[in-house]
Amino acid sequence: MQSLERIRENFPIVRNKIFLNHAAHSPLPKPVADAIIGYVKEASEQWFSEINFEEAKGLFAKLINAKRKEEVAFIPNTSTGLNIVANMLEYNENSNIVTTDLEFPSVVYPWLKRKLNVKVRYVKNSSGKILPEAVEAAVDENTVAIVVSHVEYANGFRNDLKALAGIAHKNGAYLVVDAIQSAGALTIDVVKDDVDFLCTACYKWMLGPSGIGFLYVREELIENFEPPFVGWASVKPEVFETVDFWNIWSLEFSETASRFEVGGPSVIGIVGAIEALKLLLNFGIENIERRIFELTDYLIERIKEQGWQLQTPEEKRWRSGIVNFLIDKPQEMVTRLAEKGIIVSARTNGIRVSPHFYNTKEEIDKLVEECKVNV
Amino acid sequence: MQSLERIRENFPIVRNKIFLNHAAHSPLPKPVADAIIGYVKEASEQWFSEINFEEAKGLFAKLINAKRKEEVAFIPNTSTGLNIVANMLEYNENSNIVTTDLEFPSVVYPWLKRKLNVKVRYVKNSSGKILPEAVEAAVDENTVAIVVSHVEYANGFRNDLKALAGIAHKNGAYLVVDAIQSAGALTIDVVKDDVDFLCTACYKWMLGPSGIGFLYVREELIENFEPPFVGWASVKPEVFETVDFWNIWSLEFSETASRFEVGGPSVIGIVGAIEALKLLLNFGIENIERRIFELTDYLIERIKEQGWQLQTPEEKRWRSGIVNFLIDKPQEMVTRLAEKGIIVSARTNGIRVSPHFYNTKEEIDKLVEECKVNV
Repeated sequence: MQSLERIRENFPIVRNKIFLNHAAHSPLPKPVADAIIGYVKEASEQWFSEINFEEAKGLFAKLINAKRKEEVAFIPNTSTGLNIVANMLEYNENSNIVTTDLEFPSVVYPWLKRKLNVKVRYVKNSSGKILPEAVEAAVDENTVAIVVSHVEYANGFRNDLKALAGIAHKNGAYLVVDAIQSAGALTIDVVKDDVDFLCTACYKWMLGPSGIGFLYVREELIENFEPPFVGWASVKPEVFETVDFWNIWSLEFSETASRFEVGGPSVIGIVGAIEALKLLLNFGIENIERRIFELTDYLIERIKEQGWQLQTPEEKRWRSGIVNFLIDKPQEMVTRLAEKGIIVSARTNGIRVSPHFYNTKEEIDKLVEECKVNV
Repeated sequence: MQSLERIRENFPIVRNKIFLNHAAHSPLPKPVADAIIGYVKEASEQWFSEINFEEAKGLFAKLINAKRKEEVAFIPNTSTGLNIVANMLEYNENSNIVTTDLEFPSVVYPWLKRKLNVKVRYVKNSSGKILPEAVEAAVDENTVAIVVSHVEYANGFRNDLKALAGIAHKNGAYLVVDAIQSAGALTIDVVKDDVDFLCTACYKWMLGPSGIGFLYVREELIENFEPPFVGWASVKPEVFETVDFWNIWSLEFSETASRFEVGGPSVIGIVGAIEALKLLLNFGIENIERRIFELTDYLIERIKEQGWQLQTPEEKRWRSGIVNFLIDKPQEMVTRLAEKGIIVSARTNGIRVSPHFYNTKEEIDKLVEECKVNV
């Protein structure tokens, strides 16, 4: 394991900011920025070098412990991944999906479309927690899917995916996971947790650029579904192997998850994602998770010391890289902190702090001190 | 109007390659590369500077002469734009769409989906031309849309959009246009040509990066449609104005074309698109079109001189920036030309040449000479 100092050399942001806002949009690490800059220069002067798209899928498969990279498709953003799933599941007039009242809007929106005509059941949180028992009570034989964020965006509550998968599968439903607030920060194991569909984008905890993300579809499910959006990227690569006229008369879908791809992805996005994934896997996602918990444990301690009210459930099994505490006029506080070079977000009447593995306790201290002054 | 020499300074590729392949994937002009590099550096060292997304939409609206930037939505690629339209039009059991046998697969694929259950009628080309009379003969009262590329990818045939719009509208159908092979090269006027839906991406003639594109929806149509994919980007911005809990209970769609957006776009893509559009508009799209025709006229003359067989219809009203001529083993020829630094593509048993406004007759000459040697 590299020393913290060596690690921080990869993050030029630390020289200029105390950046504790990875749940929003991460600064690009130096290797990621350099890879993109190198690619763009080449694309300007020499045309394009070949990028190995499959490498990105393989690295992401590793990050979430998928069995094969063929279970991974590129998507431009998480919302698109959720819509792909929402639009290809089958519903009848009594169907429902079960979600929670802590979700980011995009997690729920795809199922609110009139055309799908599916009921959306919102499991209520208990003091910021979604209890698997409450989910179980909401699920019935008409439930097509349980749809949740792995980590809830505002308070950082971490859902117990294994428990939810068990509930879903017992009822013949799928588990659909938005991993945007966990991928890159916490260990994810789609096999152990028995996840059916999972999607995320690269620009938050994964430390890559925006405009590129990944959809995981469990191997056995891929060929069961006609993708809702189809394009050249959805069909077998053989279709394009000749320079004669290509098949425009019928759809020969790819047998891999790439059937859920539509058209050209952001190549710059993939270049950045490859570097970002290498960086994360190099350091080790277990090590990253451990570092993040060291920092968030410490932050929670400091918050409690001040008598501020945590909005994040305190038990570690329900926690993540996000800590939220209640404060008066959080948006104004965020602006004042930004003036001091401390970057956090305001969410649900509180301050949302989201440190990554390269942050330090000293940075947390500075945040707390500045909040004290300004409260 | 700048001198050609001044213009070519914006294209570092000309020092290293004879690049005649803009119908495939363009090299990035220097101002576009510089803007992306500057943004990426900033995103690494200082976090993100604010990007004016609306500026990109305004510039694109100008390029296609749309009435308002509110008629423009970001899409990650052209195929996605076509799928949005295909999935939101209404069909009954007798419905058909009319397209052509010259289309790129992605233009047709969205309508081949089993779930849509719509018949696809392919108008046959006559010697590489799609005659409006032939389209008219294929359209009937069950036609929901005429779906075509403005310029066909393989032979460069340019459809007469105004004629097709007339046929469509007379029959209560929409005109849906894929403009990937014309936007940035030819003048487009969605008002004069009465186009209903048009989409394109930035990485070909528009000289921008991949992963970003635009969907135009005629003003009067926007609010008639529930978008097939919905996310935070589809709803009114007011939904996200507070830091309290956001509305996850109902969909309040944006009144502008941004209702067709789903989630976060490629910000790097938008940064590049803004610079690319400025460059195109600065030079003037009419001037660009004129320059491209000078070059393609010259190329056609030279091809005929050699006795090679044009696959591109010769009359100027049907032409574009793409010229294709028949050749034995085109893929091998493309490889041999690339070894000499001349970049073109192989399509439908021929060589596809696609010069942009900064190319020169001397470059065309070199292509022809190399082809002669290798034929």
